[in-house]
Amino acid sequence: MDNIFYQRVEALRALMRENHWDIVIINGSDPHASEYPANRWKQVEWLSGFTGEAGDIVVTENHAGLWTDTRYFIQANKQLAGTGIVLHKMRVPEQVPIPQWIASLGMDEPCIAIDGLCETMGSVRELRESVPGAVIFPVPDLLGGLWENRPSVPSSPIITLGEDLVGRSRESKLSWLRKWLVMQKADAILLSALDDIAWMLNVRGSDVEYNPVVISYLLVTLEDAQWFVRKDAFSEPDSDTQDSFQELQADGIQIRDYSDIHFALESLKESGVDVLCLDPATTNVSLREAVDAGERIPLTLEAASPVSAQKAVKNETEIAGMREAHLEDGLVMVQFLYWLSTRAGQVNEWEASEYLHSLRARISGFRGESFETISAYGPSAALPHYSTPRVGSALIEPRGLYLCDSGGQYLFGTTDITRTVPMGPCTALEREDYTLVLRGHIDLAMAVFPRGTAGCHIDALAREPLWQAKRNFGHGTGHGVGFFLNDHEGPQELRQNFNSVPLEPGMILSDEPGIYREGMHGIRHENVLLIRSAGDNEFGSWLCFETLTLCHYDTSCLELSLLTQAEKDWLNAYNARVCRELSPRLPAEVAAWLRDKTRPV
Amino acid sequence: MDNIFYQRVEALRALMRENHWDIVIINGSDPHASEYPANRWKQVEWLSGFTGEAGDIVVTENHAGLWTDTRYFIQANKQLAGTGIVLHKMRVPEQVPIPQWIASLGMDEPCIAIDGLCETMGSVRELRESVPGAVIFPVPDLLGGLWENRPSVPSSPIITLGEDLVGRSRESKLSWLRKWLVMQKADAILLSALDDIAWMLNVRGSDVEYNPVVISYLLVTLEDAQWFVRKDAFSEPDSDTQDSFQELQADGIQIRDYSDIHFALESLKESGVDVLCLDPATTNVSLREAVDAGERIPLTLEAASPVSAQKAVKNETEIAGMREAHLEDGLVMVQFLYWLSTRAGQVNEWEASEYLHSLRARISGFRGESFETISAYGPSAALPHYSTPRVGSALIEPRGLYLCDSGGQYLFGTTDITRTVPMGPCTALEREDYTLVLRGHIDLAMAVFPRGTAGCHIDALAREPLWQAKRNFGHGTGHGVGFFLNDHEGPQELRQNFNSVPLEPGMILSDEPGIYREGMHGIRHENVLLIRSAGDNEFGSWLCFETLTLCHYDTSCLELSLLTQAEKDWLNAYNARVCRELSPRLPAEVAAWLRDKTRPV
Repeated sequence: MDNIFYQRVEALRALMRENHWDIVIINGSDPHASEYPANRWKQVEWLSGFTGEAGDIVVTENHAGLWTDTRYFIQANKQLAGTGIVLHKMRVPEQVPIPQWIASLGMDEPCIAIDGLCETMGSVRELRESVPGAVIFPVPDLLGGLWENRPSVPSSPIITLGEDLVGRSRESKLSWLRKWLVMQKADAILLSALDDIAWMLNVRGSDVEYNPVVISYLLVTLEDAQWFVRKDAFSEPDSDTQDSFQELQADGIQIRDYSDIHFALESLKESGVDVLCLDPATTNVSLREAVDAGERIPLTLEAASPVSAQKAVKNETEIAGMREAHLEDGLVMVQFLYWLSTRAGQVNEWEASEYLHSLRARISGFRGESFETISAYGPSAALPHYSTPRVGSALIEPRGLYLCDSGGQYLFGTTDITRTVPMGPCTALEREDYTLVLRGHIDLAMAVFPRGTAGCHIDALAREPLWQAKRNFGHGTGHGVGFFLNDHEGPQELRQNFNSVPLEPGMILSDEPGIYREGMHGIRHENVLLIRSAGDNEFGSWLCFETLTLCHYDTSCLELSLLTQAEKDWLNAYNARVCRELSPRLPAEVAAWLRDKTRPV
Repeated sequence: MDNIFYQRVEALRALMRENHWDIVIINGSDPHASEYPANRWKQVEWLSGFTGEAGDIVVTENHAGLWTDTRYFIQANKQLAGTGIVLHKMRVPEQVPIPQWIASLGMDEPCIAIDGLCETMGSVRELRESVPGAVIFPVPDLLGGLWENRPSVPSSPIITLGEDLVGRSRESKLSWLRKWLVMQKADAILLSALDDIAWMLNVRGSDVEYNPVVISYLLVTLEDAQWFVRKDAFSEPDSDTQDSFQELQADGIQIRDYSDIHFALESLKESGVDVLCLDPATTNVSLREAVDAGERIPLTLEAASPVSAQKAVKNETEIAGMREAHLEDGLVMVQFLYWLSTRAGQVNEWEASEYLHSLRARISGFRGESFETISAYGPSAALPHYSTPRVGSALIEPRGLYLCDSGGQYLFGTTDITRTVPMGPCTALEREDYTLVLRGHIDLAMAVFPRGTAGCHIDALAREPLWQAKRNFGHGTGHGVGFFLNDHEGPQELRQNFNSVPLEPGMILSDEPGIYREGMHGIRHENVLLIRSAGDNEFGSWLCFETLTLCHYDTSCLELSLLTQAEKDWLNAYNARVCRELSPRLPAEVAAWLRDKTRPV
C-alpha cells in the first residue's frame, strides 16, 4: 500500500511494538485543549489526512479508527479512502465513544499510550473509568520521533488591547480572579485555555489560524501572575511583541519561557502555593504530572475555570464593539451578495470567497477571517463544513442555492454569518427546505424565556419547524461567540447536550439551523444574537435576543404559505432594519438593490 | 404557644437534646421512597400540619423549616402560621436545598439524625457530600416515640391481574429481570419501589390512597423470588388476598412477612447471593445497613432499577386498556361538564367533585380516584394543588373560570384530566390566559421529534406561547402515567430538569401547562398523551403524540386572534374526534350539547 497515511499508521504500529503499547490514542487537540490547534499539533491530519475540525484516532495492532461527528461523515469517507483507517460515527444514537470502544475489546490490562501534552486530565479520567484495568502511559509528543519537518511552536506578534476596546483593565480582571481564589480557599490557579488567557491579559496574537490567541500558560497566585509564553521573549521579538511585554511587565505580569511551566509547577510549594486550582477539562496530564513531581506537593482543587463564564458575559464596551463589527461586516456582506447576484455562471466558489475576503480586508481594524470561509454551491453545501478548494471549486450556476458561511476578526469584535441565496430558479424542495430552516431560525430569534433557562431547553424551538416535516440537522443550533477572540466559545451553547449553564444577559450566541441533502443542496441561515433582559414581572425575570448581524434574508425563494404571520412580521421588520441601518453607507446602486431585496413579504 | 404543631416541634427538640442531636431531618416519604406515603408515614403532616404532597422538615435548636416547591407556597404559608416553622422555597432560582442549607450553618461536625427507614441511600450520600464533617445517625422510626396513636402499616386486600388485562405474565417479567441480572453479573436485586413491585407481580392493592400498590419489598434472585408483604399473610387475610397469595405461590413466589426483609438481607450471602443490585434512589438506608450487618457481606452493585424503565413502555394490551379507560372517563367528563353548565350559582366546589365521583363510580372496573380531585372555582384554582374542603368550599358562580383536575383508577387503566371551563362571562385577562395555556398544550401535543429526544428538550414547546407574553407556570409540563398504577411514574417526564431519559414509543405522559394568578384565577389544560412512532426516513426515526384523553376543550372563551391556523386546525380536529367517539354513547341531550360545544372555530 503506497498511501502515505497508511505508511504513517504502519510506522506508528512499529513504534507500538517497540514499546509494547497495545493501543495508541491520538487526539486532534493541542496542549491547551483548543478546539482548533496550531499546525504543530495537527497530529490527526498528519497521521490520517483527515482535515475536519474534530477527530480523534485510535490505533491497535489490527485496527485504526477515526472518531468524528455528523458534520464530517461525507468528508471523512473521502479522505480516509486508502488509508486503512475506519470511520467511527459520533453524535448518532448508536455512537460508541473511544473509551467504551476500547472497553468493548475486552483486553486484559491493555497498555494504552496517549500524548501526555494533548490529553486532558478529564479525558484520561474518563478512559480510566471506562477501562479500569488499563495501564495508561502519557507520552509527551508521542508522534515527535515519526513526524519529519514538524512545524515548531508558533510565535506570532503579540498585541495588547486597551480599555477603550475591551472595557476592563487586566488589573481589574486579575483582582476579580484573586477574589475568586480566596472564595475557593485556594492561592493559585493555572490557566491553560488560550482564549481565557488572552481575555485575562487583554492580549491577542495569531498563533492559531483564525483564533487571535497566544500559545501560553498563565499562573496566577494571590501575589503574582506569571505568563509562560515565548522562547524569544527577550532575545529577538518583533516590536509589537516587545511593546506588549513591556506594558504587561509594567502591570506586574512576569514573562517566562513557555517551556518553563513544568519547572514552575514542580516547585509550586516552594513558591508558597498551598492550594492550586486546575480545570480538568483544559489541563493536560503532563502538567498534572509536573505538579505531582515536586518534592513537596500542593493540594489541588479541581474546578471549572471561572474565566470562561466571566468572559462569556460581554461588558458594554465589548457589546458596542460587537455592534460596530456587525455593522461593518453587514456592509461587506450586502455588497458581496449584490456583486454575486450579477455573477451567476461567471465565478466559482473560490473566486467568490476571494472577493468576499477582499471586501473585508478593506475595513480598518480587520485582522483576518474568524474561520475558514465556506463558499459552497449546490451539492457542495450539503457538507456542513465544506472546505472550498483553491483549485477546482465548482462554478456558481444561475440556478439553485449558494451558501456562504464566513466571519471576520476585527480589533473591535468577531462576526460569523451564513447566508444561503438563490442564484436563479429553485426546485420546490429547495424552496421548502429554505423556508423551514428560516422558520427555525426566526422562531429561536423571537424566543422569550425566563432566567435559568439553558441552551438545551430552547434548542428545539429552532428544530420543531423542521421536525414537523421530519427533517433535521446533525449539528448544534448555536455556539458562543468571542469578542475579537475565538468564533466558538463556551460555556453556553444552543444544542441538545445536557449543558446546564444558564443563558445570561450579555452572552452572545449564533443561531444557525440548517438542512443538508447529500448530492443535492445544503441550507443554513445564521445570525449572531445578543441576550438581553426583557424585564421582570410577577412570573420571573425575562430574557430575549437582539440580533447583532445586519444582512437581509433573501425572500425570493420563500414558500410563504409555510410561514406564520408572526414569522413574516419578524422577517419584514428585520429586513427593514437592515435596509435602514446599512443603506446610508452603501454605494447608491447597492442601496437601491437592497431596498428592492428588503420589500416586505 | 398553644399551637399543637409548635408543641410537637418542641417535643422533638427535647428528644434532640436527650440524644445530643444538633439537627433532625424528617422527610415526607416512606420506606419505599414513595411520592405519596400511607398515613403511617405522613410524618411531615403530623409534625407541621402541612398537607402538601411534597415537603421535608429540618429542625435545629433555633430553627424549624419546611422545604417545599412552588406548587405549595401559598398553602404552606397558611398552614404553617403559628407553628414556628419557616417556609424554604424550592424550584425557584435562589433555592437552597437542605444539604446546602445545613452546610451553610457552618457547624463543626454536626450530629444529624435522620429517619433510617424514610431516607434513601442516595439522599444520605448527598447530605454526606454537602456536609463532609457531619455525623449522620439513621434512626429507624425517629418520631415513633412521640407520635401517639400512629396509624399502623396498612394491609388492604390484594388482587391479581391476569394477562388479559396486563398483557404479560409475571413469569415473563421475572425471566426478563433475571436476564438483566445476568448481564449485570449480579445474582439478586432488591426492589423497594411499590409500583415496580406491583408491576412485576401483576398485583394491586390500596395501601396508599389513590395509588393501587401493596406495601412490600421484592427480592429476586436467579433462583427464587421472595415477596415481603404482610404480617397476617397466613393468619387472617381477606379472601381476595388469600386467593392472590395462592396464585403467586403457585407461580413460585415465596410470601414472607414485611418485617423479615432486614433478616433476609443480613443473611444474603448464606443464601447464595454474591452480588446484589440496589437502586440508591429508592432503597432506604436501614436496608443498606442490614445488608452490611451480615456476617458475610455480598458485593453490592448500585444501579437504577430496570423495572421502572420497562414499566414505562406500555405493551399493546396496556395501551388498549388505557384507550378504553380514557373513553369511559371521557363519557364521565362530558356528562359532568354538561351537568355543571346548568348548575352555575347553585353548587359549590365540593358538591361538584362529589357529583363527578358519582359518575365515575358507575363505571364497571372503577377502583377509585387516581388522586384527590381538585375542584376549584375562581381564586381557589390559583393554588395549583388546591385541596377542595368538604365544608366551606366556594360557590361556583355564573361568571369566570372553574378548574377540575381529576382522574380514575380502572382495572384496565389510569386517567388524569384537567378541564378549565367558563361558567359565564370572563374577563379579557381570563380569556387571554385561557388561550395562551391552550396554545402551549396544543403546541406540545402537535410536536414531532426524533428518537433520542428527552422531555427537557421539548418542555419549552408548551411554555413558549406563555413566555412570549412573559407568563409562566411553576410546575412541570408533564409526568408519566401508570397503567392502573400510580398517576405519577418515571423515569420519563416533561419538564426542565436535565433528565436524559429519552422519550420512547409506548410511553404515556400528561401534557398540562397552566397559569396561576393569586387571588384571581387558575387555568390548566391537561390531556394524557401516548408516544407513537411517526416513521423513519433519511433524517432519523420519528416520534409523535396520540392524545388518549377524550373530552372537548371549551372554545367559548378563546381569544381566537392569539391562535395560529395550525393550532385552530388541531383544536377543531380534536373536538370533532371527541364528538364522534363519545356521542353514540351519551344521552341524547348531552350528545346534542356536545355537538354544539364542538362546533369548529
